[in-house]
Amino acid sequence: MSEYYDFNKMEYIGNQKGLKAGDGFHYYNPDELIQGKKMSEWLKFSVAYWHTMDQRLVDPFGDGTAQRPWDKFEDPMEQALAKVDYMFEFLDKMNVEYFAFHDRDLAPEGNTLRETNANLDKVVDKIVEKMQETGKKVLWNTSSLFTNPRFVAGGATAPFADIVAYSAAQIKHSLEIAKRVNSMNYVFWGGREGYESLLNTDMKLEQEHIAKFFHMAKDYANEIGYTGQFLLEPKPKEPTSHQYDTDAATTIAFLKTYGLEKDFKLNLEGNHAYLAGHTYEHEVRVARDAGLLGSLDANMGDKLIGWDIDEFPNDIYEATLVMYEMLKNGGLATGGLNFDAKPRRQSFTMEDLFLAHTAGMDTYAAGLRVAAKLLEDRVFDSVIEDRYSSFKSGIGADFENDKVTFKELEDYVIDKPQSELIAATKSGHLEQLKSTLNNYIFTVLGK
Amino acid sequence: MSEYYDFNKMEYIGNQKGLKAGDGFHYYNPDELIQGKKMSEWLKFSVAYWHTMDQRLVDPFGDGTAQRPWDKFEDPMEQALAKVDYMFEFLDKMNVEYFAFHDRDLAPEGNTLRETNANLDKVVDKIVEKMQETGKKVLWNTSSLFTNPRFVAGGATAPFADIVAYSAAQIKHSLEIAKRVNSMNYVFWGGREGYESLLNTDMKLEQEHIAKFFHMAKDYANEIGYTGQFLLEPKPKEPTSHQYDTDAATTIAFLKTYGLEKDFKLNLEGNHAYLAGHTYEHEVRVARDAGLLGSLDANMGDKLIGWDIDEFPNDIYEATLVMYEMLKNGGLATGGLNFDAKPRRQSFTMEDLFLAHTAGMDTYAAGLRVAAKLLEDRVFDSVIEDRYSSFKSGIGADFENDKVTFKELEDYVIDKPQSELIAATKSGHLEQLKSTLNNYIFTVLGK
Amino acid sequence: MSEYYDFNKMEYIGNQKGLKAGDGFHYYNPDELIQGKKMSEWLKFSVAYWHTMDQRLVDPFGDGTAQRPWDKFEDPMEQALAKVDYMFEFLDKMNVEYFAFHDRDLAPEGNTLRETNANLDKVVDKIVEKMQETGKKVLWNTSSLFTNPRFVAGGATAPFADIVAYSAAQIKHSLEIAKRVNSMNYVFWGGREGYESLLNTDMKLEQEHIAKFFHMAKDYANEIGYTGQFLLEPKPKEPTSHQYDTDAATTIAFLKTYGLEKDFKLNLEGNHAYLAGHTYEHEVRVARDAGLLGSLDANMGDKLIGWDIDEFPNDIYEATLVMYEMLKNGGLATGGLNFDAKPRRQSFTMEDLFLAHTAGMDTYAAGLRVAAKLLEDRVFDSVIEDRYSSFKSGIGADFENDKVTFKELEDYVIDKPQSELIAATKSGHLEQLKSTLNNYIFTVLGK
Amino acid sequence: MSEYYDFNKMEYIGNQKGLKAGDGFHYYNPDELIQGKKMSEWLKFSVAYWHTMDQRLVDPFGDGTAQRPWDKFEDPMEQALAKVDYMFEFLDKMNVEYFAFHDRDLAPEGNTLRETNANLDKVVDKIVEKMQETGKKVLWNTSSLFTNPRFVAGGATAPFADIVAYSAAQIKHSLEIAKRVNSMNYVFWGGREGYESLLNTDMKLEQEHIAKFFHMAKDYANEIGYTGQFLLEPKPKEPTSHQYDTDAATTIAFLKTYGLEKDFKLNLEGNHAYLAGHTYEHEVRVARDAGLLGSLDANMGDKLIGWDIDEFPNDIYEATLVMYEMLKNGGLATGGLNFDAKPRRQSFTMEDLFLAHTAGMDTYAAGLRVAAKLLEDRVFDSVIEDRYSSFKSGIGADFENDKVTFKELEDYVIDKPQSELIAATKSGHLEQLKSTLNNYIFTVLGK
Repeated sequence: MSEYYDFNKMEYIGNQKGLKAGDGFHYYNPDELIQGKKMSEWLKFSVAYWHTMDQRLVDPFGDGTAQRPWDKFEDPMEQALAKVDYMFEFLDKMNVEYFAFHDRDLAPEGNTLRETNANLDKVVDKIVEKMQETGKKVLWNTSSLFTNPRFVAGGATAPFADIVAYSAAQIKHSLEIAKRVNSMNYVFWGGREGYESLLNTDMKLEQEHIAKFFHMAKDYANEIGYTGQFLLEPKPKEPTSHQYDTDAATTIAFLKTYGLEKDFKLNLEGNHAYLAGHTYEHEVRVARDAGLLGSLDANMGDKLIGWDIDEFPNDIYEATLVMYEMLKNGGLATGGLNFDAKPRRQSFTMEDLFLAHTAGMDTYAAGLRVAAKLLEDRVFDSVIEDRYSSFKSGIGADFENDKVTFKELEDYVIDKPQSELIAATKSGHLEQLKSTLNNYIFTVLGK
Repeated sequence: MSEYYDFNKMEYIGNQKGLKAGDGFHYYNPDELIQGKKMSEWLKFSVAYWHTMDQRLVDPFGDGTAQRPWDKFEDPMEQALAKVDYMFEFLDKMNVEYFAFHDRDLAPEGNTLRETNANLDKVVDKIVEKMQETGKKVLWNTSSLFTNPRFVAGGATAPFADIVAYSAAQIKHSLEIAKRVNSMNYVFWGGREGYESLLNTDMKLEQEHIAKFFHMAKDYANEIGYTGQFLLEPKPKEPTSHQYDTDAATTIAFLKTYGLEKDFKLNLEGNHAYLAGHTYEHEVRVARDAGLLGSLDANMGDKLIGWDIDEFPNDIYEATLVMYEMLKNGGLATGGLNFDAKPRRQSFTMEDLFLAHTAGMDTYAAGLRVAAKLLEDRVFDSVIEDRYSSFKSGIGADFENDKVTFKELEDYVIDKPQSELIAATKSGHLEQLKSTLNNYIFTVLGK
Repeated sequence: MSEYYDFNKMEYIGNQKGLKAGDGFHYYNPDELIQGKKMSEWLKFSVAYWHTMDQRLVDPFGDGTAQRPWDKFEDPMEQALAKVDYMFEFLDKMNVEYFAFHDRDLAPEGNTLRETNANLDKVVDKIVEKMQETGKKVLWNTSSLFTNPRFVAGGATAPFADIVAYSAAQIKHSLEIAKRVNSMNYVFWGGREGYESLLNTDMKLEQEHIAKFFHMAKDYANEIGYTGQFLLEPKPKEPTSHQYDTDAATTIAFLKTYGLEKDFKLNLEGNHAYLAGHTYEHEVRVARDAGLLGSLDANMGDKLIGWDIDEFPNDIYEATLVMYEMLKNGGLATGGLNFDAKPRRQSFTMEDLFLAHTAGMDTYAAGLRVAAKLLEDRVFDSVIEDRYSSFKSGIGADFENDKVTFKELEDYVIDKPQSELIAATKSGHLEQLKSTLNNYIFTVLGK
Repeated sequence: MSEYYDFNKMEYIGNQKGLKAGDGFHYYNPDELIQGKKMSEWLKFSVAYWHTMDQRLVDPFGDGTAQRPWDKFEDPMEQALAKVDYMFEFLDKMNVEYFAFHDRDLAPEGNTLRETNANLDKVVDKIVEKMQETGKKVLWNTSSLFTNPRFVAGGATAPFADIVAYSAAQIKHSLEIAKRVNSMNYVFWGGREGYESLLNTDMKLEQEHIAKFFHMAKDYANEIGYTGQFLLEPKPKEPTSHQYDTDAATTIAFLKTYGLEKDFKLNLEGNHAYLAGHTYEHEVRVARDAGLLGSLDANMGDKLIGWDIDEFPNDIYEATLVMYEMLKNGGLATGGLNFDAKPRRQSFTMEDLFLAHTAGMDTYAAGLRVAAKLLEDRVFDSVIEDRYSSFKSGIGADFENDKVTFKELEDYVIDKPQSELIAATKSGHLEQLKSTLNNYIFTVLGK
């Protein structure tokens, strides 16, 4: 397939000053063991069809700049089928095992859903074939209930019954595809499931509708024997003014309100976290603490920019802390690291697609290496153990074990002088701790 | 008491061009009926002790500017007792029935909790006396677990057992006061219940601690027969980097996770909403939809400013939409409208306290008037009824009534052409709707 | 021309409760005198070709939803010519005198600039003809140096000489068109004139290039005898990470640094102001104080949303304060109020275009009415006069008139006690002032 | 002086995994040559009196938590004098050569300026003595025109003549101190020089006042022979709603408008940059490009937090890019790196002050090391050289050298096909470039 792209397969070469992205992986060494498991098992990288194959690098003020070899195919179905080849070659060259897609990424729509499904099935047939041939896998698939104008006011939360019906039918087919391609997860991102204005929105009714819809989706998955993990992907705003699945905590509130917390976990994204006012590691922690950490989007944003930029990850701090949460979670079960990321609009060449993925993979591989050392050396664990140690004995243990009442706690403290109470508090030494994080990053990655 | 302040009791005078705040109420007419209920019953205004009596108008870069008649009392307890008189005269002059306070607003701390409680009880004795004398009531009381350095790392979520014990003891006494003053609600605002950094925080443990703490607080309230409504007040950040009760949805997630949703409702605030990226009316709607709307803080912020400014409300749009949610909720049960608001630092005179409250009361009274007309004329109701009408019959009703499966929905739409689907969507006409909101504001308030 | 749109010409009907946008103008009465001048002269409303004729209501996650009668024309040039008719009928129906356009709004590009110019000239020919026929005028024209991929890294600031050359050639032709259509202003909005990252940007060189470019543009305008006012339009970010003309003050710094302040004024926009962290009235004040207030975009944004939404204006506070600045400026000379605004994506019908413009015009007409009364009654003027009165005599006047040195000022204050200094400060009474603003809005607009 | 603090003098120990802040400097090696100059000459670190000696670690919701050995002195003047000893011991232990202070940091105010000056002079006498004894130097001094309530509405921009007079007198004395202590720079940060609301503000008059004030200050400095560099410090908001010196570009606009650009340079701060929506390196670049880069505050903020947190710097990306700008500027002339930073409120021990400064110094020392290598290897220079190479010859050079007109540029491009124009653009390869930045950080710092 070397006819397609003019690149060699990316291999691990290690790091030294002056090496560039594209020379090889500096940190990602698929078979190297980290905490007893291969890097490739911790880091189930996945390429996003919509960005890597379909993204034209448009923005609200400009037409697409992307230069792609498949632009030469003019017939939409011919191009759709050709892109499958390019995709699998890309996975091969990049040494990536997984990919992810929306239904609408793969094939053009027809005039009816029946025609649309027919187009789609032809491409899925080819994908299944290529999967068998190459061993590549689907991390997750999903369905676009946001691009077509029929979803102008929502998919499952649309105020128009026909559109809800259409959404159901579309998801139904997506679940069938999930079963065919043995997708490890099925993701719902509610791009239009929110409101433009409260003035004309019955928010409660819309949330009841989508909850019902999710129950029906799960029922259908059970009916056809699709057992992949269902995931919801939070995002606070854009494209709507307010999206219902605002952030991890809000989505958990929704799941618990509607009895869906057994059936769904979360697919989290760094850029979405910032838009909700959180760090990425915060969102991952919230999900982990709730036992609902499903999968991760490997992208980042710019905290000074108020919209989703889906940049390839290059921030070692974020990668380290997110990988730390992932290790603490014992990995991601069915989840992985999907590059919901696109090159900058000025990085319009085919080469940039390779460079960007390489750089992104190395960022998370580097983060994993640092995180593993931090865990191994119990850097944060020992800080936390010490900080909460007063709950291991005495009044703290009694509190922990439900052995005291408010009255008894009052008796315990009512005559303690202020100086004694102040002495019970300890410095958080955060400046030192952040310096230690730097120390680990530089020493682990620089050698 | 005319010796205290040089102001007349504020009365309703109606509105006409050129009238100023301070001349009388332009919109707040306590006995006027709105939707069959007195304005004073819809609008249970409450004065905040901490702002109106205690706020020195400091900011992070400057000392307090407030000029107050009680500054002449030098002994802290003498001043604390004098302020009770000033407070009740203020309530009288402003025609406000309710007030709210933290324990620490009322009296200085001693060296031990026992001494602190003794100081506090003396002031509460006087408050109880004045309440009996005047008929004024406590909308809610609360406890400051954030000002004293002992709470440097939290109160109920502190990593130090002694501090958790102290917090319990302090809340215990606050609940006893709540019972004594017959407080309609008891509020928890977790000013330090969050984290400075995830690096040294066991977020899950801290949340388990505070959940346990809340259960114990409720148990103690039950034990002493205090039946006021418990409220949690969300705020996303400030003073901590991340506060656990981020916004309404997050707080609901917490309540449901720890089985507290029967015992707690929410106390919401406009300025906190913006800091979480939401409009105030959004937060109120989220709480209302969950059946958890408790009480409201009557303040506002500046969406271009990234911290809590606690400005007195003057935005008629926000007041109208929040009052609309309140009317839709059938009122606030035990809740009211507490002015968690302070004059700007340049509004440092005693007069400004009166002007600011008058202006704030009029803003919400004006909002109530507009909201009532919008409801009466079914302005938004008819828009919404029409917008969701497709769920009243046919496939929409079947969906609503759980009578269809994904398969049947697929059959229904699979051959519908795109044109038919587009025709099923309707314009939201939001520009017209916002113009109608202006029309109601100007015509209802201008006559 | 009634064949085109099914609407009557919009007329002034005055305001009363229940009237809707679309029934007629509630506040805009073109011939009514305000401060001795017709409303239509104060409010030189202008329709934006790019939004009203060309905007498909796309967003980054969805295809266009707009339903337009000219969609029936399939040939691009045929459609371009037909839209001219629709545009002039729209202006007529809306009772708007002005319009504004980018070169690329009018006609499709060809493969070379020569071909592109030829397409454009055909449409301009028709526009000139319609202008003569109807008396409608061009408020301003401009050139798109941002949509085509060739401008991926900038137009006049592109790091590629050929693109700078192309930009010059394109502007040259736009200036020739400006002369032909007698455009009152010529606007530059630097959509790509900024950077994606400092890492690969020579910011100083790029700013020198564009300054040189602007001087050349002015030279060319002089050469061909085009005398319209040149305007720069600030915006801080989007589409680039940082745009050079960030806000009014930054743009003034640029103009002064490169000796362009005699040749350029500013075209300001509300939504851009928020993105830069300012209120709209702030930006207008900055430009007015510098004598550089050129023209205004009549739109608004959502301060909780981090990108440009170009909403039709409906906020009476902003409209009032911006109109107040405009009146203080003695009007806008060659400038006007251009609706750089689009209906929400859900307001996709042709009717919404009419409703949105009507509502927007009424918002600014209402703002003008309130602002005029505030000025007439010297509401803010008398507050300011009083507030700064200490500079009218004594030491203040000496300072104002350069009659004192630091030494003399020291002598004046060195022994003043703190109490006297505090007494020299006065309350800003901002709560009362904001209440007065409400009083004027409600009473002026409600009667 | 070992009686004061229980710490050893901080020495360079190099880096290896597991070393902690406080063990010694990992990257700061004062005498090591970087680009031919000692690190201590590039990095003129300065300790901020207000944070390190005076900061109580208060926040808007809590009392101070700081535990300091000088708290034992109860008499304010006695404490003020004792702190001088502690300060100089701190400088010695930390191996820092410079410090910076506001007048009000040093000594308590009296009832009149004369009394205040007398207090201040006593402390300055001691400081001068200690400076002679130790060789430590003042990087800059400044004056607090924001803390005392008399500055409620501004200092030099106050609407009250007496307050402007007071401000002048206060600055006069500060300039005299600057001369006495041979301060390398004199800084103005206009904490109250802005507005709370435009409604009652004459912004133009206020800016004219402060411009006049600055001219008078410069005149006075000249009169007394003080030759230190004058600096303005931009910040967009907090404490006021809008501060006049919003950011670097705005401040440059102000300087140029009022003819002050010869007398002033800029003192920049990372946290202030974010609040204005910029990166720190952007602000430094803007100042450098204008020839106005004066001095730097070594602090950072949190881009998800909307107020000034003055955190000690720990972000290697920011430190590297800011040091890169500094090297490109050929150093900072009279400027340095002042730690306008405070430990987190939970880092309340004396030890944390040492740890935080050590960590902060190492962050910038590390950044300097990486930046120097990036420069040495011409990493960004060669990218930029290549990117703008089309301006070195042909039409680009003609444009650069003012040898072409719009007409000639038109002739050059008018028949170029789109494909040729697209081919003239080049990928920015930003993903690769950011990966290279990581490569340098890890390899330079990790060895």
